[in-house]
Order: sequence, then structure tokens, then C-alpha cells
Amino acid sequence: MRIGIVTKHGLEEARETLAALEVWLSVRASAVWSPESHALMPAGQRVVLDRDAMPDQVDLVLVLGGDGTLLAMANRVGRAACNIPILGVNFGSLGFLTEIRRAELYTSLEAVLHGSAEHDERMMLRVVTARVGREAEVRLLLNDVVFTRTALSRMIDLAITIGEQFVTLVRADGLIVASPTGSTAYNLSAGGPIVHPAMAAIVLTPIAPHTLTIRPIVIPAEREVRVRPAASNDGAEVYVTLDGQWGCPLGEGDEVAISRAARPLRLVRASERSYFEVLREKLKWGER
Amino acid sequence: MRIGIVTKHGLEEARETLAALEVWLSVRASAVWSPESHALMPAGQRVVLDRDAMPDQVDLVLVLGGDGTLLAMANRVGRAACNIPILGVNFGSLGFLTEIRRAELYTSLEAVLHGSAEHDERMMLRVVTARVGREAEVRLLLNDVVFTRTALSRMIDLAITIGEQFVTLVRADGLIVASPTGSTAYNLSAGGPIVHPAMAAIVLTPIAPHTLTIRPIVIPAEREVRVRPAASNDGAEVYVTLDGQWGCPLGEGDEVAISRAARPLRLVRASERSYFEVLREKLKWGER
Amino acid sequence: MRIGIVTKHGLEEARETLAALEVWLSVRASAVWSPESHALMPAGQRVVLDRDAMPDQVDLVLVLGGDGTLLAMANRVGRAACNIPILGVNFGSLGFLTEIRRAELYTSLEAVLHGSAEHDERMMLRVVTARVGREAEVRLLLNDVVFTRTALSRMIDLAITIGEQFVTLVRADGLIVASPTGSTAYNLSAGGPIVHPAMAAIVLTPIAPHTLTIRPIVIPAEREVRVRPAASNDGAEVYVTLDGQWGCPLGEGDEVAISRAARPLRLVRASERSYFEVLREKLKWGER
Amino acid sequence: MRIGIVTKHGLEEARETLAALEVWLSVRASAVWSPESHALMPAGQRVVLDRDAMPDQVDLVLVLGGDGTLLAMANRVGRAACNIPILGVNFGSLGFLTEIRRAELYTSLEAVLHGSAEHDERMMLRVVTARVGREAEVRLLLNDVVFTRTALSRMIDLAITIGEQFVTLVRADGLIVASPTGSTAYNLSAGGPIVHPAMAAIVLTPIAPHTLTIRPIVIPAEREVRVRPAASNDGAEVYVTLDGQWGCPLGEGDEVAISRAARPLRLVRASERSYFEVLREKLKWGER
Repeated sequence: MRIGIVTKHGLEEARETLAALEVWLSVRASAVWSPESHALMPAGQRVVLDRDAMPDQVDLVLVLGGDGTLLAMANRVGRAACNIPILGVNFGSLGFLTEIRRAELYTSLEAVLHGSAEHDERMMLRVVTARVGREAEVRLLLNDVVFTRTALSRMIDLAITIGEQFVTLVRADGLIVASPTGSTAYNLSAGGPIVHPAMAAIVLTPIAPHTLTIRPIVIPAEREVRVRPAASNDGAEVYVTLDGQWGCPLGEGDEVAISRAARPLRLVRASERSYFEVLREKLKWGER
Repeated sequence: MRIGIVTKHGLEEARETLAALEVWLSVRASAVWSPESHALMPAGQRVVLDRDAMPDQVDLVLVLGGDGTLLAMANRVGRAACNIPILGVNFGSLGFLTEIRRAELYTSLEAVLHGSAEHDERMMLRVVTARVGREAEVRLLLNDVVFTRTALSRMIDLAITIGEQFVTLVRADGLIVASPTGSTAYNLSAGGPIVHPAMAAIVLTPIAPHTLTIRPIVIPAEREVRVRPAASNDGAEVYVTLDGQWGCPLGEGDEVAISRAARPLRLVRASERSYFEVLREKLKWGER
Repeated sequence: MRIGIVTKHGLEEARETLAALEVWLSVRASAVWSPESHALMPAGQRVVLDRDAMPDQVDLVLVLGGDGTLLAMANRVGRAACNIPILGVNFGSLGFLTEIRRAELYTSLEAVLHGSAEHDERMMLRVVTARVGREAEVRLLLNDVVFTRTALSRMIDLAITIGEQFVTLVRADGLIVASPTGSTAYNLSAGGPIVHPAMAAIVLTPIAPHTLTIRPIVIPAEREVRVRPAASNDGAEVYVTLDGQWGCPLGEGDEVAISRAARPLRLVRASERSYFEVLREKLKWGER
Repeated sequence: MRIGIVTKHGLEEARETLAALEVWLSVRASAVWSPESHALMPAGQRVVLDRDAMPDQVDLVLVLGGDGTLLAMANRVGRAACNIPILGVNFGSLGFLTEIRRAELYTSLEAVLHGSAEHDERMMLRVVTARVGREAEVRLLLNDVVFTRTALSRMIDLAITIGEQFVTLVRADGLIVASPTGSTAYNLSAGGPIVHPAMAAIVLTPIAPHTLTIRPIVIPAEREVRVRPAASNDGAEVYVTLDGQWGCPLGEGDEVAISRAARPLRLVRASERSYFEVLREKLKWGER
């Protein structure tokens, strides 16, 4: 078995874990290291592969860091030839995606090596950005597509279509189109609902909508959502961002189509922790 | 074909429609009238059946009135032997359920008689109320199960379990457990999201929660939701209401289990109006 | 100086403090004990006065317990002949009103005895409940007047007038009319804003309003707010509750008038803690 | 009496009104026209003054257009030598500021000329923007100061101080600091409360806050609010906008101080329309 190890950039706290992990893996599996992992390790000879190349060369991606690092690997794993799983270990507070703690690293890895690990499947989004005069770009992502105004522009107008049906023109600061996994990220700040990750759903949440009766809406994942800047946007600039990692401006005639990706992301599950336990801990539901 | 006609109690505006409908139906189908319909019609001989008995004797229930009247028939149709459709005609403003206007009554009926009518399937909820020392009661409903405090009690504590997993203890004025259809009813007032009626989902929305980080959550309809008053409720009384039509108090040890009903309600669709059109009109999304 | 000590009913954790306090006070001031305080103390001879009688017989009320106990004394102090201050010591978590910790009890008392204590003035509400066929009742309170429906009734309609101007008919689960001090209590759960306690303001927050564009509104404390059940409330019962401690049903023709009380409540301030520190701690603003 | 007439840029619908107004005024008062007003009028000789110069040369500013145009004149009137009133006439839908309809123009003007017009005083904000290495800039405005991230940056961290007290570090998309008048503008979209314009208050509303327990807060207008980008903002850019009309980027060490302006804006009141009538009409409170 071949395991690829990806570490958050400059995560000093991972030095010891990385060194110990190398020893531990040496007699159990072959290891492939991302450049940032390698940079945090003692001098030595290793197979080093960058983040883009890794998913096609390994059987598992092990992420040391936080949700951000896992998010950055999710779209890369999404477009790999095989649907390999990701094991996310958090080095800070518990993450929604990296719910395995450092102390659970070796038992989780052992479960993977013995074939006894359980997986959670997380729906991904497939996003086609079609801009006038350019070739359409296709991207995969795990959390959300966010449409915002630029700082200087006023509210923006976005026309939303779901399936073949026109939904409405939203006048707002922006719009979040999130997967169930993304529902506990930015969507929550903007007043959107939590959507259980086992659902095949897409949630649309306006950011500071001008029309007070516009509300978050949850739709079946089979329906394609299309968003385009409305012609009424005189001067206001619209910007689209994917998983907070890639973005571009949108003008009149451009359109972003969001649908369910053909295959889900597979996350190795921390056996003893349920989704609701993570919610309770992250959102501090117990405290009064 | 046998059509059962149910009218909102004392709906004077329906008199003319009922009289004309009787003539129209006389050469096309056999008609069965609810007592309230009969009471609004000219003297005459008719087959009259009460609301409980009707669903097992007809092929279609035609509702003249508003969403409330349709809701009252939904649970009766839900427990009938056959899954007969309902055609809802609104006599006031457009309803989420009674989206057919008076002017569209005959074309809609004709479509039904010719077998060309389309149907929307709406997921129903099956609710089992288990109270200490009583036999469990099973009810079907279309919109929502609402847990509230009584006026004199303070906030109530409710323990929520989804599937086999404990979710959290909610301290709030109450809790709404709604179907997608019910998401645009009381759920919306309490800050819950709109859930598209094609989804197999259940939405849980706390009412005025004491813990500010408790948020509405949407879960797969396959998971059973169980709600019980927590032991910490000293003195506070919990009350549960089903579709705003039936209710009972809950004490310690009682439990309400909510799951997806085995079969959906079938609503005759007004062909030219989409779900999003109804949303736009009801929520006045177009106005600025 | 005469100090009245009031304790939360059955607060076992206060036994030691009460005993020590008696010794400490014996050489510094005369003490008057509420029956619940006395019940938690070792056998002995003491001046015991019930909660109603105490405010007119002492120079300071010392509350051991939580916000609830202080709230119960606030209206009694409000109608006393002199505007004596209250010193609130919390025995659980930090309170918005009882912000003095047990460890700070003696330094706070010393400051009071030396005349060096600082006070926060908290605006109180004066509520006149006028019911058909009854004499109007006047009450003073610190937090809020809450109008709710009873569990069995549907939404209620309330007509709101501010000063001489009709505001609107609110169709909702209820309405909260709060003082700035009450803004961080129930009002916050219902989505209302925090209003700084130095303000002369009244905040009106609907609970789960049917009209989605109805929003919390903050008005000058000089304007009288009048609320009455609307004639459209067929059957629905309205209930009004004052500071969660006194309540009565309201019918057609009844009216509740809320205005600023003639004098504020005086709270002894814990010198080293600012209002925003309390907010940060209670609302866990620091955590991420 | 000297009246200055300012018109919304390119407001074709005002042509007729402007021409008629010139005739009407000719025998009653002297008129001064803004360049945009002049551009919409028939050829002729007129006193034309630009928007900046006008407030110091007239006794009343008459605004034909909407809230945006009135907003643009508010800060100019704010820094004029005399506190002259503004009369706002809306040419579209009723405005919160331009609540006088076209049909009421002449009766309102007559009231002004006869000295019988009533005025509403609206608190203005005084904003001092202190940027490292630059001279501090002082501006007056009527609605709000808005701190936002730029489209590419993630959430921003803002440190808020009120008076001498540190309040909290807000991690959010942004922050709105609004006057009571501004409370019904952008503040409402972001979930902030309505604050009655007779109040001396400042409302702070976070936009999509990361910490779910951060809530809008209303404070006395006497307290100065200071906002600065926190050091933790690595890379994220903060942008501040005043009344949506002037803006600049903020970096580490920069600070914006907001307080109540020394004098209020005086708006000529449409005698027969109360503040709550405007709220009802603008927010469609009557509809169900």
C-alpha cells in the first residue's frame, strides 16, 4: 500500500509526528511525501511528490493539519483516476473534516492498512464556469461556491435557475451555494441551515439580502443550479470563489453551473465519533 | 370515476362554485359531498359522506378552500386504503398546497377525468406518540410536528435523537419537526430554511433557542427523529401539536417518534405553475 | 447601616457564606434576613423579614443566588419608598445582573459600607395592565413583558401603538417588550438586539412572526408602548407575563401599557468588570 | 428665501416638475439650481451652483430623486455654516428619507415659505479616519460606516472599542456602524434592528459573523466607537465605506472613530405621514 502524506504549510507542531510516522510506516507501507511534509522532516532520502501529482500515485492521502489543507486536497483527489480515500488528522481544534485527533493517528492508519477502516462519503460539487470569450472551466470542490460583490460595488443582482426553472433575482451582498459538507462552513455564518452530510442536497443561502423575505433554500442535488450576474448590475462587479481557493470575476453573459459531482469524496471515519458529536463540540451546544 | 368534494367550513364564496360544479359533474362523474359542502348547496338529494369516511369511497378528493382544509384531508387520505390524489382549489390567496385557482377548476378536473393530470408527490410524516401508561398512537401528517411550552412555563428542554445517535438537548420555546412541504409554513417564521418538496428530508428548527449556536438542521428522511421532554424540565409543561390540528401534553418518559410515511400524498398539479413561481408570489420575492 | 440578605430558595451552597457573613456583619452593620436565608443558617436569633417587607426596612439588599432571585427583588425595590441599591452575588455562573463573584462579596460590601461603592443605574419598566371589568394593575419590572399564545392556540394578532401612533398588527407566536437590561435575556433568543444598559430605550421583538419583514425595533423610552389583542384573534388566547414571574390572560378590549418607570434600579457595580466583559464571558465571544 | 434644487443625475421624469417649479418659484422665492437640474430644464438663464457650493448659499435644499441623492447632499449640508433643512421628494417609490411625494411638493414648499413646516431632526455621524502616515480625515454622514473585506480576502478581524472599553474582536465578512436613520438601510439586510430616528443611538451589526453568538448591539450615541483592522488579518484587506459614497482601504495601525455629529440634519416633514406609516409601506407589514 502506498500512502501520500500532505502537511499544512509550515506546521512546526507536525515535525515530531512526521519523523515518527516515517519510522512507523517504513515496515508497513510505502510512503510518498509532499514537499511541505519533506521540508519539516530531518534530512533524508524520500519519495517527494507535489500535491497535484500525488493523488494518482497513492492509495490513501493522509492530511496533517486542518480543514483548509484537506479542502485543498479534496479537489485534487476528486479529479484523480481512482477514488482514493483521505484521512484527515487535525493539529489544532477538532475539524469538521479532520475529525481524527493526533492520538488516533496510528489506530486509524492500522485500520486502513488492515482494510477495516470505515469511510464517510461526502458529496462533491462539480462547477462549470462559462465566461464570454473563454473556454468553460470545470472544477470539483467539497464545500461551496461563493458569489460576492467587490468591496467598492454596491449590492449585486444574481439570476438563479434551478433545473429548467427560473427561481428569482437575488439582490444581496452575495450568494453561497454549498454542499452538505459546506453547510457548516461559511453558510452557517450567513444564516444558512446545517445539512446532514449523508444528504444529496445543495443549499443556497443569500448573504445580507436586500429583500428580507429571501431565505436559504435546500434543493435536491440532482438539480443543476445556474447563477449569472443580472443585466441590472450596472457597474457592480461580481466575483466567484470556489472553496475559498480559486476565484475569478464574472461579467454579463457569464454563467456558473453547479451540480453534484459524479463521485463522492471518501473520508476515513474516526470510528468512535459521530457527526452530531462533532457538531456539539464545534458549536458548543452543551454549554449554557 | 367518483369524486369527493370537501369545502372549508362556512365558505360562503363557494356557494356558486358548488352549484355549478354539481351540474358540471352530473354528466361526467359521480360525486360525493362532505356535510359542509352539502350545507352550502341548494336543497337536493346527494350522496353525503363525512371527511373521515370519504377517502375510502372516492377516486379523487377535491378541496375547495385553503391550505388548512387540504391539511385536514391529507392525514385522512394518508390512512385510506388507496393512495388517491387531492386537487386543492384556493378561494383566497394562492396557497402552497392549494395552488389551483378557481378559474382553473374545470380544466384541472378535466385533466383528471381524462387521465392526463400530472401529480406532485409530497412526503408525509408518520408520527408515533408513546405516552407512559397509554397505548402508542400513530398519526400521519403533511406539514409539521411542533413541540411548545405552555404559556406559563419557562423554556423547555427537549432531548433529540436521530437514528441511533443522540443529537443534543435543546433549551428553547419549542421545536418544529417539519416535512419539506411544512418547511414553508411555521418553520419559516421560526427562521428555518425552505426545503424543496421533491426532497426526502426532515427539517428540525428550534423556536427561540436559549443556546444561540443551535441552528436549523436538515436530515435525510430515512432517519427516525425521536423527541422527548428532558428530565431537567422541572415543572415546565411540554405540548406537542400535529399539523396544528391535534395535540396532547407530554411528560417525563413520553416520546414522539417521527419518520417518513410509507407513501407520499399525491397532489394534482396546476400544470402551468412551478414551485418557484408559488414561492415568488407567496413570499413577494419580486418586490423591492 | 441596615442590610437585608435575600437568598435563592434552597441554595445549599450558600450555607457557609451565610454563616460567615453573619459573623462578618455583626461588627459592621445590622442585618435583616429573608426567610429562605434564615432557613439555610444555623439555629439562632435573627431579624427575619419576608421579601415584600424588606425593601422598606433596609439600606441595601444583598442577593445571594442568580439573576432570577435579583429579578424577583427588583420589582419589590422598585415600589419601596426609597431607591435603595441591590448588590447581587452569583452562586453559579456569572450573571448579567449578579456580576459579583463570591470571592468579591466582602470587598464589595466594604465599599458599600464606606460609601465608596459605584452604582449602575438600570432603567425599569412600568406596566399598566387594564382588563375589561377589572381595576387596572400597575407593576414595575426590570427585564421584559412577554405576550404569548397558549400552547393550543395558533398564532396571535397583537395591535401595537407607540406614543399616539399605530405601529402595526403583529401576527406571531408572541411579542417581547424589553428594557435594555432585558435585551440580553429572552429577547436575545428571539433574535432581538443587545441594547446597552445605559440607554433610555425599549426594544420590541416579535417571536416567530408570520410576516417575515417584521423586525425588532428599538424606540426611545419616553414613548409609551401599548399592546392589545386584536379583534381578529378568534379563539386564540393571549397571555402576558412580566419578568417571567407574574402573568394573566388577555382578551378583547384589554390593554397593556408599558413605559419607563419613574426611577431606575441601582445595582452596586463590581468595579473591575465592564459591561462588555460580562457580554464576552456570557456569550463566549472569545472562543473560535 | 433662497432655495437650492438638486436633482438625481439624468432623472428624465423630473423634467416637467423642474419646469413647472421654476415658474412657481419665480414669484415666491429665489432659486439656485444644481448642474444636473439645469441640464434637465429648458434653455434659459439660471443661477447654477454645484452640489458642494450650494449649501452655504441657500436657506433650503430641495432634493428631487430618491434616498441616494438626499444622502449625497446630507454630508454637504452637514458641513455647511448654517444648519439649513432639506426637503426630499421621491420620484420612485416612497423613500425612508424622501418621504414626500411629487403631489405634495407645492404644499410642502408653501409650508416652508410660510414658516409653518415641521422638521424631523436626524442624528448624523462624524467619522474620523486615521491612517498611518496620512493626515486624519473628518467626514459627516447620515446612514452608515461599513467595514468589508475585499472579494479575494477571507473573513476579516476587526477590533472594536466603545468609549474606553474594548468590546471584542469580530471575525466576519464585515461590520456596519449605523445611525438610527441608517438602521433601515444596509443594517436591515445584515439582520440588524430598526432603531427609531428620534433616538440618540449607534447600532453595530456584524455581517456574516464567524462567531455565531455575536449579535447586533445598540449603544448610546455619546460613546465613541473605534474600529481597527486586527493584527491577525494576515493578508486580508479591509475596506471602509461611508454612506456608500466614499471609501478607502485600511491597514494595520489605521483606525476609524465614529461619534455623533455636533448637529443633526433637519428634514422637512411630510405632515400627514408618520415614521411607522413609512415603515409599514416600505416593509409591506400589512400584507399577509
